[in-house]
Amino acid sequence: MSSVIKKIAVLTSGGDSPGMNAAIRSVVRTCAYLKVDCVAIYRGYQGMIEGDFKVMDARSVNNIINKGGTILKSARCNDFRTPEGRKKAHDQLVKAGIDAFVVIGGDGSFTGAMIFNKEYNFPVIGIPGTIDNDIFGTTFTLGYDTALNTVVECIDKIRDTASSHNRLFFVEVMGRDVGHIALNAGVGAGAEEILIPEENLGLDRLLESLKRSKESGKSSSIVIVAEGDKSGKNVFELKEYVEEHLPIYDVRVSVLGHMQRGGAPSCYDRVLASRMGVKAVEALLEGKTSLMVGIQDNQITLTPIEKAIKGHTKIDKELIRVSEIMTT
Amino acid sequence: MSSVIKKIAVLTSGGDSPGMNAAIRSVVRTCAYLKVDCVAIYRGYQGMIEGDFKVMDARSVNNIINKGGTILKSARCNDFRTPEGRKKAHDQLVKAGIDAFVVIGGDGSFTGAMIFNKEYNFPVIGIPGTIDNDIFGTTFTLGYDTALNTVVECIDKIRDTASSHNRLFFVEVMGRDVGHIALNAGVGAGAEEILIPEENLGLDRLLESLKRSKESGKSSSIVIVAEGDKSGKNVFELKEYVEEHLPIYDVRVSVLGHMQRGGAPSCYDRVLASRMGVKAVEALLEGKTSLMVGIQDNQITLTPIEKAIKGHTKIDKELIRVSEIMTT
Amino acid sequence: MSSVIKKIAVLTSGGDSPGMNAAIRSVVRTCAYLKVDCVAIYRGYQGMIEGDFKVMDARSVNNIINKGGTILKSARCNDFRTPEGRKKAHDQLVKAGIDAFVVIGGDGSFTGAMIFNKEYNFPVIGIPGTIDNDIFGTTFTLGYDTALNTVVECIDKIRDTASSHNRLFFVEVMGRDVGHIALNAGVGAGAEEILIPEENLGLDRLLESLKRSKESGKSSSIVIVAEGDKSGKNVFELKEYVEEHLPIYDVRVSVLGHMQRGGAPSCYDRVLASRMGVKAVEALLEGKTSLMVGIQDNQITLTPIEKAIKGHTKIDKELIRVSEIMTT
Amino acid sequence: MSSVIKKIAVLTSGGDSPGMNAAIRSVVRTCAYLKVDCVAIYRGYQGMIEGDFKVMDARSVNNIINKGGTILKSARCNDFRTPEGRKKAHDQLVKAGIDAFVVIGGDGSFTGAMIFNKEYNFPVIGIPGTIDNDIFGTTFTLGYDTALNTVVECIDKIRDTASSHNRLFFVEVMGRDVGHIALNAGVGAGAEEILIPEENLGLDRLLESLKRSKESGKSSSIVIVAEGDKSGKNVFELKEYVEEHLPIYDVRVSVLGHMQRGGAPSCYDRVLASRMGVKAVEALLEGKTSLMVGIQDNQITLTPIEKAIKGHTKIDKELIRVSEIMTT
Repeated sequence: MSSVIKKIAVLTSGGDSPGMNAAIRSVVRTCAYLKVDCVAIYRGYQGMIEGDFKVMDARSVNNIINKGGTILKSARCNDFRTPEGRKKAHDQLVKAGIDAFVVIGGDGSFTGAMIFNKEYNFPVIGIPGTIDNDIFGTTFTLGYDTALNTVVECIDKIRDTASSHNRLFFVEVMGRDVGHIALNAGVGAGAEEILIPEENLGLDRLLESLKRSKESGKSSSIVIVAEGDKSGKNVFELKEYVEEHLPIYDVRVSVLGHMQRGGAPSCYDRVLASRMGVKAVEALLEGKTSLMVGIQDNQITLTPIEKAIKGHTKIDKELIRVSEIMTT
Repeated sequence: MSSVIKKIAVLTSGGDSPGMNAAIRSVVRTCAYLKVDCVAIYRGYQGMIEGDFKVMDARSVNNIINKGGTILKSARCNDFRTPEGRKKAHDQLVKAGIDAFVVIGGDGSFTGAMIFNKEYNFPVIGIPGTIDNDIFGTTFTLGYDTALNTVVECIDKIRDTASSHNRLFFVEVMGRDVGHIALNAGVGAGAEEILIPEENLGLDRLLESLKRSKESGKSSSIVIVAEGDKSGKNVFELKEYVEEHLPIYDVRVSVLGHMQRGGAPSCYDRVLASRMGVKAVEALLEGKTSLMVGIQDNQITLTPIEKAIKGHTKIDKELIRVSEIMTT
Repeated sequence: MSSVIKKIAVLTSGGDSPGMNAAIRSVVRTCAYLKVDCVAIYRGYQGMIEGDFKVMDARSVNNIINKGGTILKSARCNDFRTPEGRKKAHDQLVKAGIDAFVVIGGDGSFTGAMIFNKEYNFPVIGIPGTIDNDIFGTTFTLGYDTALNTVVECIDKIRDTASSHNRLFFVEVMGRDVGHIALNAGVGAGAEEILIPEENLGLDRLLESLKRSKESGKSSSIVIVAEGDKSGKNVFELKEYVEEHLPIYDVRVSVLGHMQRGGAPSCYDRVLASRMGVKAVEALLEGKTSLMVGIQDNQITLTPIEKAIKGHTKIDKELIRVSEIMTT
Repeated sequence: MSSVIKKIAVLTSGGDSPGMNAAIRSVVRTCAYLKVDCVAIYRGYQGMIEGDFKVMDARSVNNIINKGGTILKSARCNDFRTPEGRKKAHDQLVKAGIDAFVVIGGDGSFTGAMIFNKEYNFPVIGIPGTIDNDIFGTTFTLGYDTALNTVVECIDKIRDTASSHNRLFFVEVMGRDVGHIALNAGVGAGAEEILIPEENLGLDRLLESLKRSKESGKSSSIVIVAEGDKSGKNVFELKEYVEEHLPIYDVRVSVLGHMQRGGAPSCYDRVLASRMGVKAVEALLEGKTSLMVGIQDNQITLTPIEKAIKGHTKIDKELIRVSEIMTT
């Protein structure tokens, strides 16, 4: 690919996350600042295939930095997994004179981008937008910090009613394969126990811990459960199990669900999005491709997409230990 | 009962609601202001039976006006439904020199208070603390306004992700017998459809409405469902029904659950609690009993508890019409 | 004016308030529902004079119910105070085929509307949008409830730092002529003293009260001061006065300022706006004019604009008493 | 100092910041977990001098992780700057059998701790609690993340009203010597211009930038000004200057003030506090002293206090560039 990149497209893909709009804004404004044309692609790869494009200028992204969701819409797209779908997408990009694109999304979106890059030698840069924080090559993904605040605010509210009634709550949070949200929000919310996909504490240990918590005089208990918890039981089954084996508690369940994906982004996510968008455009203009923008040691970095999607950010063993100490 | 009330007790009972602490604070401080002794009863009627009392002064309630839940704990109490239980409770009150009490809670708590008053001619005043707004004799119950704000904030977040993916969400809110939260939060959140216990729209109408909403070009749809919705289907069954009969939507479910009961009270609920607490104590000192404090036309009023628990505040027909117009 | 109203305009005027967008949405959607054309006027009366209009349909107001400010912009307009300005405005309305308008604003905006109605027999209905709650004929103005929540949330934060340092804070809130925000937010935030335009407590009483508060063992003190406080001193002068005459406090000042006008509206304001918008359009279609929509005893009402702008909602004497009791 | 540390004290000192309570909780619980006695010192070094101590166990810190401010109170203390004051403090510590202490505060507090350590060979560890993020040896200080969120939420509200009226706002944020809050919150809030102590843009450049912003069609402008801005003008003088030299704007001022120090800590600050508290206690038990706990590259680290107080975390030049690009 030659270095003459004159028109850059931006799209959001996969599950949405807070900060995506701030990242779109940053890509659009960086293009305007550097005098490169910018085109928005709606509805992720589906919109790429269908040519659902719109020319963007600096004013197109006014007043979106603090909005949740994505103004470009997002979607999962099966067609883009087929060579035919990608062919159509490439035709559309060529037809529109687009020289490169920035995709904001998770590992599924990045895999698509990488394959597309290999097939068509088309410059692509990824920005990690997902609340799960499960992508290698960045300490924080876009939206993760906001989701953590949403979760602890919800649990603070649940704690109010839990401690008024001396109740035990199982609270399910997002994280099918990784327990970052559960572990961090659990520590942040002062949870008595945290169940994550990476570890199987065993149900005996849970009962033991809850028993101890009750005896220590705590007025309520909150157990955070990641969606993908290894215990083999979902949150409702856990409730039944505890009610049966430890009938000292009045147990309730709360599934936080999709509200974790929404809301105005935190300042951190807005700044991160702004920094990442600048880097993504600059990388493309420097002739780079198939890289993911990340943040490591508070510096913006670039990692090959191939590496980013292979690994996961590992759960922090030190933080697991902190969580145990905090429930003393 | 003579008019020489020298010691007043305060308790919270039944499900908790935001503003209960502000009401406790108000009762305690009004007693201090009027030079009457004040005693807190912990864990509702259970604590009354067990004599779980604590002397309160003006400083005992510092910094609680903005806290959710209840510092006095709450509980449902079966023993108080028996003559034996109430006998024990009366003995404890007499032993502690308590001349009257203020109970903050819902209709179950008020029923208990009324029976107790009849049996022992013991002065009682009720303050309506429940998020459901289902008590006759007051336009607003304590905690209702806060719960509405919590619900619309959650739905605002869900809307972010719903509209990013063109999805349909069924959101279940509290309200087993009454649809006040569903109807008001539904209008406040701009819901496309609202299902409440008071009306059975029929599932055909729901499908029709959702079809129309999609055709009108809306990017997402939120359907609010009160727990006690009359359709005969819960929120998960509704999802399945719509997916089967209207396969144009990607459908998701969110059950907001207990977080609706928690959180810092709104300014309205704090002020309402402060006003109600003053009135409750003053009514007792004026020799009144078996009354519930309420707010009507922005004035603090008194209603016989007997009337308060018999009726429900009816759903506002005009607001149902407004909700239909808003989904145009 | 004949009853054939086929095209209704909506504008926002004067200082903005949360809920204005929800009211605009309601007017637009009610017009759509009732098959009446709807036109937005930008920048208040200035835009009316300049013919800054835009045709609106139900989809034009998607996703604005929860947005602060006003999408139609607002402005104060001197030209509309002159007969020439109003003549131009009328010409523009006639040219655009507009038969009536709904103005969302405060008493200044209503005065203009009333004069215009008298001069041109042009149907107008007002919706009271102002955070000050200073308009006769409605218990609550649009935006007032939200502003109260904003103020108590700010003071909750200030309280955190005040009580960590045993400090005294003077917090200035909006309300040049009326003390509704100061009084209600003061009670809601647990302020130790509240200074409002309606009453002159005298500075001696303030010193006395602060001295007593310190002696009673309170860890911090918050004094709320309305902009138009009668003491004759602004908030910075009050600070100096107290530091000089009562050197037992470390005193700080905080002026909350314009953030009180912004933010997502509370559920109450969103519902109120929705109800008021419906009523405004319906009133016009019923041939009514020169009325203001209000809420009284939780019912939507109509009051002659002439009466609305003459009177003020009086400060609640009972609440002043409650505020005194609460600072015990 | 021998390694037999059996009793550890904890205090907060200097200006308070959100997360201090979470750090206190962590120190207390880590002591409990590791079977070391723990004592709280009230009112910072002043309380140390006066022996204002309280024994803490794991339950003493229930339900404070989400509370702003510090339950131990804080104060600036001149006496501790004198050898006599420090002598008294040491006597009190010895008398109470305290072997070491953890001080949560800023560089002033650390300087005192370091001198005390040198004079009495008394083990001390510091935890950086300040919203200013101005301490060397940690990428983030405790409370900084929360303060940023508070600031952007306030500016989001101000933006609502600013853009409704096409106004220019000067918003003053904290940061006397460093512009971290101004720069990051400025980028996060989408400010048109950011004035920080580290750089002197010159007033001509400001006027130029504001003129361009107006011409580009922006509906409002927000200029963030750090307290210690180098322009030599405070925020009110800036307003006057701009009104005089660029009369195209309606200009307003907002000083955010002390609310920036309060509020429930963000999840990030709660987790950071929990991790730092564990490390502080463990470091003392390992015989370490005169170190500050920090976070670097998402790992908890230790830095000599001497180094921490000498340097400042420098302003991020890359972020200044990002901020310029974003205002395109």
